[in-house]
Amino acid sequence: MKAEIIGVGTELLLGDVVDTNSAFLAKEMAKLGIDVFYKTQVGDNIFRLKEVINTAQSRSDLIIFTGGLGPTEDDLTKQALCDFLQIPLLENPQEVKRLSEYFQVRNHKMSRNNLRQALIPQGALILKNPIGTASGILLTHSDKHYILLPGPPSEMKHIFLNEVIPWLKKNILRNKEYILSHTLKFIGISESRLEQELLDLFQKQSNPTLALLAKNGEIHCRLTAKVKSREHFSSLIKPIKEEILKRVGKYCYGTDDLTIEEVVGRQLKEKKLTLVTAESCTGGLIAKRLTDIPGSSEFFLGSVVAYSNLVKETLLEVPAEILNKYGAVSEETALAMAQGVRKILQGDLALSITGIAGPQGGTEQKPVGLVYISLVGQNINVCKKYIFSGTRQDIRWRAATNALNLVRRSLDDIESFRS
Amino acid sequence: MKAEIIGVGTELLLGDVVDTNSAFLAKEMAKLGIDVFYKTQVGDNIFRLKEVINTAQSRSDLIIFTGGLGPTEDDLTKQALCDFLQIPLLENPQEVKRLSEYFQVRNHKMSRNNLRQALIPQGALILKNPIGTASGILLTHSDKHYILLPGPPSEMKHIFLNEVIPWLKKNILRNKEYILSHTLKFIGISESRLEQELLDLFQKQSNPTLALLAKNGEIHCRLTAKVKSREHFSSLIKPIKEEILKRVGKYCYGTDDLTIEEVVGRQLKEKKLTLVTAESCTGGLIAKRLTDIPGSSEFFLGSVVAYSNLVKETLLEVPAEILNKYGAVSEETALAMAQGVRKILQGDLALSITGIAGPQGGTEQKPVGLVYISLVGQNINVCKKYIFSGTRQDIRWRAATNALNLVRRSLDDIESFRS
Repeated sequence: MKAEIIGVGTELLLGDVVDTNSAFLAKEMAKLGIDVFYKTQVGDNIFRLKEVINTAQSRSDLIIFTGGLGPTEDDLTKQALCDFLQIPLLENPQEVKRLSEYFQVRNHKMSRNNLRQALIPQGALILKNPIGTASGILLTHSDKHYILLPGPPSEMKHIFLNEVIPWLKKNILRNKEYILSHTLKFIGISESRLEQELLDLFQKQSNPTLALLAKNGEIHCRLTAKVKSREHFSSLIKPIKEEILKRVGKYCYGTDDLTIEEVVGRQLKEKKLTLVTAESCTGGLIAKRLTDIPGSSEFFLGSVVAYSNLVKETLLEVPAEILNKYGAVSEETALAMAQGVRKILQGDLALSITGIAGPQGGTEQKPVGLVYISLVGQNINVCKKYIFSGTRQDIRWRAATNALNLVRRSLDDIESFRS
Repeated sequence: MKAEIIGVGTELLLGDVVDTNSAFLAKEMAKLGIDVFYKTQVGDNIFRLKEVINTAQSRSDLIIFTGGLGPTEDDLTKQALCDFLQIPLLENPQEVKRLSEYFQVRNHKMSRNNLRQALIPQGALILKNPIGTASGILLTHSDKHYILLPGPPSEMKHIFLNEVIPWLKKNILRNKEYILSHTLKFIGISESRLEQELLDLFQKQSNPTLALLAKNGEIHCRLTAKVKSREHFSSLIKPIKEEILKRVGKYCYGTDDLTIEEVVGRQLKEKKLTLVTAESCTGGLIAKRLTDIPGSSEFFLGSVVAYSNLVKETLLEVPAEILNKYGAVSEETALAMAQGVRKILQGDLALSITGIAGPQGGTEQKPVGLVYISLVGQNINVCKKYIFSGTRQDIRWRAATNALNLVRRSLDDIESFRS
């Protein structure tokens, strides 16, 4: 089974848009053990699209397209495929009904060109898209499989994960050898320090192999192996994973797709505790990340984004003397912010953060990147000082990540991520 | 002059690395006025590399490769090109000397495989790389130009900007036309509606051409033209831009790289007004986006993230009767939240948002995606109802975008983005 990926859209050839869709698909295909040998990007041009389809079908068995399924005149993927295969493109009554309902629910008038999205190649399978107007399409023709997905990443991913993967597993993949990987995620330890701690493991490993990757202020350690089954994989990586955790486990917050905010959310739910936050330099980013999690209202009550000193003083009741004597970016202010927000929002635990995200506003004593993070609760009253580097966005992201990690470390004992 | 870009490297096909090189090159080529019609990524495999070269030379005049110039066994770009063109690959004495010096300066021992980087196709031009070991290569054969660049982005960019562009300008581009583009960005109008409003313009335009692109709940309209100069471009697009703004200008918040949060920030600064927010379903995202802007403390005082009803009631003083009678997701609650936060954070304008981001929590009367946005100030007291689609993240992002747009529309008159 040889596969290739075709991104459709002139924006991809002008460099306006970086093609992240094909990286996502390539990664998923690798997990499924399907080799992707080529990726191509082509513009919204029917002649060149057909040429690319011709090349692809001559060398691959499975061809995945992204983009060109929209309602406008320059959305041409279906037309090009049908022209090339000489298959009719027909208006599908179920799709017309679905689209009418979609627009009705939203009180929008369906325009005539929206009906272009109800056109389906004869004999194709419709891949459901509950979050947008363009359905995915799967067509098998002369032993080649063509999968057409919409360009918007969230819709493309949804259809791939919920429709395409189950279909591939049922129809294509049996007795395959898989490349599986498992990632241990660390906060609070540098890449070079982690490499030193694990150096002998790196040197002697061949299956699984180990690789380190620095990502947004976290360090990820990826274990990769070629195996027959998930069970085989689990038993293969178990001893090395245990050795890694024995050495540097306290920095490891979780594995694979788990995020630090999800880990903190789980801990709070388990312990039946609620969290509130007071944010200055991160400006709502911690609250945003916690509320990215569905059901976060169970453990997160709210936040005060105290961007101005006036808000710190009047609402969070940070004493004016503290602000004047130590400044807004200080251990004293961070602690007072946490105590203040805990009182007004009535959470079990209160997390506060104050710092200098830059690019301006740094001094010799208080450089850009200086951040104080405080956590206050019935049995806890701590404040930690950090100096982060990078752009304004890097500093804000890393500050939020380390603030969440402070909550984790405070709530956690080493056992909880070993499962 | 038709061009294409080929990325070489198995990592590009595993999805570990997003191919940003090709986006950079595509953007530079567009600036030079050279059409890029295809982009391809292929792995470190000599057979498939030759196949890709064969396809490329059959349809393009200028072929740019990135990657595969390193010292290891799986760096095959030069070999594949020479095999395909039947040209010898020879050790170049100057390159051997350069490499020896490179390693000597750094006190590294040069290993034998480093000498692979001194191999140059017969008749090729060497493109200097002062920041790495792999030189770029430019080979002209049967009227086709092959340009080979190393994979590391900083080296690739350096060689392209300092060696390739001057060569192209001298040898290929004379009296060339440039492709320039200008993007108008819209919120609050659908892609199909916008297309209908501008249909005659789309149909009759050839230079500039118009294209629509839906992106994160916004619609972008890109005007692209082939011109001799920037001045020529401005005068060419002026009448059509004016016509577009005459028809749908109220939905257009800005152009090119400007974001809606930056536009709102500028307006507030100009009018010397401060904004505060009260967020429920967006959980801090609006505050986060506003504070992404350096210097946002000038116009943004802070926010209350009122994720629980208790916070809405006690801190924002939303009357319990309103919460009980109309629910937390209602026009009445949104208005009361805005009034409450304006009072406690003392901003000139208060923006509030309450809704159902999903995936759970929807009912028939109040489906997932239902969002109320309210804006309250001295002379304003509005609330708008929206129904957004997509994932939880899509809904939250679109809600925040439309909330910011409500501020813009309220502050703005149509003239401000025409400049």
